[in-house]
Amino acid sequence: MSDKNMQVLFANRPKGWVQESDFKIVESEIPQPKEGQVLVKNSYLSLDPYMRGRMSAGKSYAAPMEIGDVMVGGTVGVVVESKNEQFKPGDVVLGYFGWQKYGLSNGKGLLKVPADKIPLSAFLGVLGMPGITAWIGLNMIGEPKPGETVVVSAASGAVGSVVGQLAKAKGCRAVGIAGGKAKCDYVVNELGFDACVDYKAGNLDQDLKQAAPNGIDIDFENVGGEILDTVLTQLNAYARIPLCGFVSQYNVTEPYQLRNFGAFLASRVKLQGFIVGEHMNLWPQAQQELTQLYTSGKLKYRESVAEGLENAPKAFIGMLKGENFGKQLVKIADR
Amino acid sequence: MSDKNMQVLFANRPKGWVQESDFKIVESEIPQPKEGQVLVKNSYLSLDPYMRGRMSAGKSYAAPMEIGDVMVGGTVGVVVESKNEQFKPGDVVLGYFGWQKYGLSNGKGLLKVPADKIPLSAFLGVLGMPGITAWIGLNMIGEPKPGETVVVSAASGAVGSVVGQLAKAKGCRAVGIAGGKAKCDYVVNELGFDACVDYKAGNLDQDLKQAAPNGIDIDFENVGGEILDTVLTQLNAYARIPLCGFVSQYNVTEPYQLRNFGAFLASRVKLQGFIVGEHMNLWPQAQQELTQLYTSGKLKYRESVAEGLENAPKAFIGMLKGENFGKQLVKIADR
Repeated sequence: MSDKNMQVLFANRPKGWVQESDFKIVESEIPQPKEGQVLVKNSYLSLDPYMRGRMSAGKSYAAPMEIGDVMVGGTVGVVVESKNEQFKPGDVVLGYFGWQKYGLSNGKGLLKVPADKIPLSAFLGVLGMPGITAWIGLNMIGEPKPGETVVVSAASGAVGSVVGQLAKAKGCRAVGIAGGKAKCDYVVNELGFDACVDYKAGNLDQDLKQAAPNGIDIDFENVGGEILDTVLTQLNAYARIPLCGFVSQYNVTEPYQLRNFGAFLASRVKLQGFIVGEHMNLWPQAQQELTQLYTSGKLKYRESVAEGLENAPKAFIGMLKGENFGKQLVKIADR
Repeated sequence: MSDKNMQVLFANRPKGWVQESDFKIVESEIPQPKEGQVLVKNSYLSLDPYMRGRMSAGKSYAAPMEIGDVMVGGTVGVVVESKNEQFKPGDVVLGYFGWQKYGLSNGKGLLKVPADKIPLSAFLGVLGMPGITAWIGLNMIGEPKPGETVVVSAASGAVGSVVGQLAKAKGCRAVGIAGGKAKCDYVVNELGFDACVDYKAGNLDQDLKQAAPNGIDIDFENVGGEILDTVLTQLNAYARIPLCGFVSQYNVTEPYQLRNFGAFLASRVKLQGFIVGEHMNLWPQAQQELTQLYTSGKLKYRESVAEGLENAPKAFIGMLKGENFGKQLVKIADR
């Protein structure tokens, strides 16, 4: 192989918005597997909002990255060389190799996936971490019952789009919140939500009341900030809030100050923050149900694919600004 | 009987702090029981922070009171006349007659209590609604495990004092937050908490860190506002917050704006608002355990007793300002 490895390193801790200069792209030799190791050539890299959190020094659920680290991230790729009997060349594997073309693994945390009839990228989206995040948050914390109203912010995104479709499958009214008419149209017309509110239209409170006329029973929260503050005023008694992300807050230097916290008592709300990696016991069930829905054509999704690892920083910044449409991926190499 | 009935009516909806002029005291004839009814002479009235919420017009878990209503409230008293075969004169009963000397009931919601060896007032405190609130919030939502740290605000109050003692009984570190040295001394020396932080000393963050050096696993929240905001920064992963009250917020016209909401995700916190009356299925178990602890001398409490129903408004206002010390009661009549 005359190919080289390419890596995107974490070069500078951002304050506020991430800049391209916060990353550094380097080339190096392709590593060689030792006994027990596997060399994987990554096909796709998943870009996700949580990565912004890892770039901050503050307390969060995961330790912050250190300057010089390879940027973290989920990947799907193909085994090119194996000195581990559990894997053979050609196997398609889900891993967490980060922003790099080639990765070495001892096999731990590497998951073979059945990629015969399913496009590789789906394992980073509806059938992967984002889809499972939606499944776990909605079912484990939301506990949806038929006839209830489920609101989800960032509704056209990788997690939100699955939340709404799962809610519909449970017999709920699914209401999305998204930025712009194009995303809202997609959420309703293609994903099959009952309604979608464009928060950029500047009339969130009224529009949400119209979209959720019976009040809100579950708020799958991806965004935080002012959108959450508005949702809080429209909760029904015993509402549940799976708290999945705060994408509105990752790039601000001063945190949003929540006004309507009183709703948690007034409506006896249950809220729970969660991260998908801490509920591995639920993954098999989630993956099975999602694959079933997907195979029967009931789980739709859209992808934004950036071509080439060198374009990952730009794509990541765009995603944080909401410029992507659907699951954001980087195509690193052909299968 | 030449006695008269006395009632305290809700006369004016307060904005901000409650005034004595928000109440009106009236006298009337003692009502006569009809077939199936019971006439009760109340001995004690319980004063509780939730009553402030009922005086507001805003959305809350219970409908607001209307001007002219008898102020709501839990009472313990003695049956003086009965045309209901389930009760006889002399029975001691817990009821919800509100701020009045005499009350009529059809028996529904009236509970006979074993007052032979237990002072009547205890049924409004450690063995009544406040004690049961502590038990349900701590056990149902907090789920304390031995060795964990439990923080409770308003720690010398009717609910908080029981929370800490139950936490100790479960093998937890119990840390109170209260206003002033006298209350803190009481919480530690008499109630047996491990530590108590005086929030009025102006050094809450540091003092709380010292009192809870291993971080906070359960925050039994009675107060809200800035105290909660500080507690949020010291939560451990998977912390639980039984949300019981917002006593800091009842008398403000502008709600406190919470800065540290991000902690709910960063620490994967579970928070649940609850009101005790909606978990009646748990009352028997709670009452049994509380009575057991009480009888064995392990459940200490203190009362502030205002003498005479005409002094209830003043005592209520004082309680909202934190002037009481322990469970606030009004003695209406001798048994």
